Amino acid sequence: MRVLGIDPGIAIAGFGFVDKIGSKLVPVQYGAIETEARTAQELRLKQIYESACALMDKYKPDTVAVEKLFFNKNVTTAFAVGQARGVIILAAAQRGLPVSEYTPLQVKQAVVGYGKAEKRQVQEMVRMLLNLSAIPKPDDVADALAVAICHAHSSVLSQMINEVKRP
Amino acid sequence: MRVLGIDPGIAIAGFGFVDKIGSKLVPVQYGAIETEARTAQELRLKQIYESACALMDKYKPDTVAVEKLFFNKNVTTAFAVGQARGVIILAAAQRGLPVSEYTPLQVKQAVVGYGKAEKRQVQEMVRMLLNLSAIPKPDDVADALAVAICHAHSSVLSQMINEVKRP
Repeated sequence: MRVLGIDPGIAIAGFGFVDKIGSKLVPVQYGAIETEARTAQELRLKQIYESACALMDKYKPDTVAVEKLFFNKNVTTAFAVGQARGVIILAAAQRGLPVSEYTPLQVKQAVVGYGKAEKRQVQEMVRMLLNLSAIPKPDDVADALAVAICHAHSSVLSQMINEVKRP
Repeated sequence: MRVLGIDPGIAIAGFGFVDKIGSKLVPVQYGAIETEARTAQELRLKQIYESACALMDKYKPDTVAVEKLFFNKNVTTAFAVGQARGVIILAAAQRGLPVSEYTPLQVKQAVVGYGKAEKRQVQEMVRMLLNLSAIPKPDDVADALAVAICHAHSSVLSQMINEVKRP
């Protein structure tokens, strides 16, 4: 199963493709879609959408996992992030890909096993679990990989539960 | 000039096409894109995007005007509205249409001439300015038409200013 993890944003949207092979997690490709502040908002959204489409068509994920609203008192930021999220989720929907959402708490619990883990701990666990030599930069990329890992772990768990249920 | 006004939302997105012919405003088509709460979020966004594309292709606006963040303490709502906004703005960008944003204050000032006008006053002015027999329902439709009128008035104003500037 190939998971695309996304940490959406208008200036930087982190992405990470992770394969789950048995119980192993293998990083396939990761990076960031970046747009410039001086570009008109509608063109930035179009760039994000087109990049997301191109990435999905190239790396063909089976499923997409997105970080759910991080708590933010700034409504303007929430709107902007929501817009970026919207066009990425649209790209997934147009390809018939299921979209799962995880809160930062769920991501931390799945990756570190502790909901109040520090950002740095999460990043270090991402590096270890994916067997990378360094923590991917910028933070948005590590965050996107963390969401992908969270989804992969969650689906392992739900698979185990299903297997236990079946006599 | 044909303006498409949008009041974005995930459950209901109001839209209104208004022609500005000289100083006259003529309603062309208006209504709401609606999606059902029980439908998966990604499919709702796809429905909104496809409806927006179909409307733009049918009524061919010259420009799109969208209500800017209405002040809302609920970040979850801001995210959801942002996502709907994102896919509609994407549809406009893909057609090379300029997108303008107006705050509720700007809309009220442009439509009623008074920034603290009541919702009902704005709706009644929309009805009068567009020569409609009744206020369009639901509110989202009247709001979308108000944004379109706001844009039409603003561009009349900027045209007048340009004409004054030219000797």
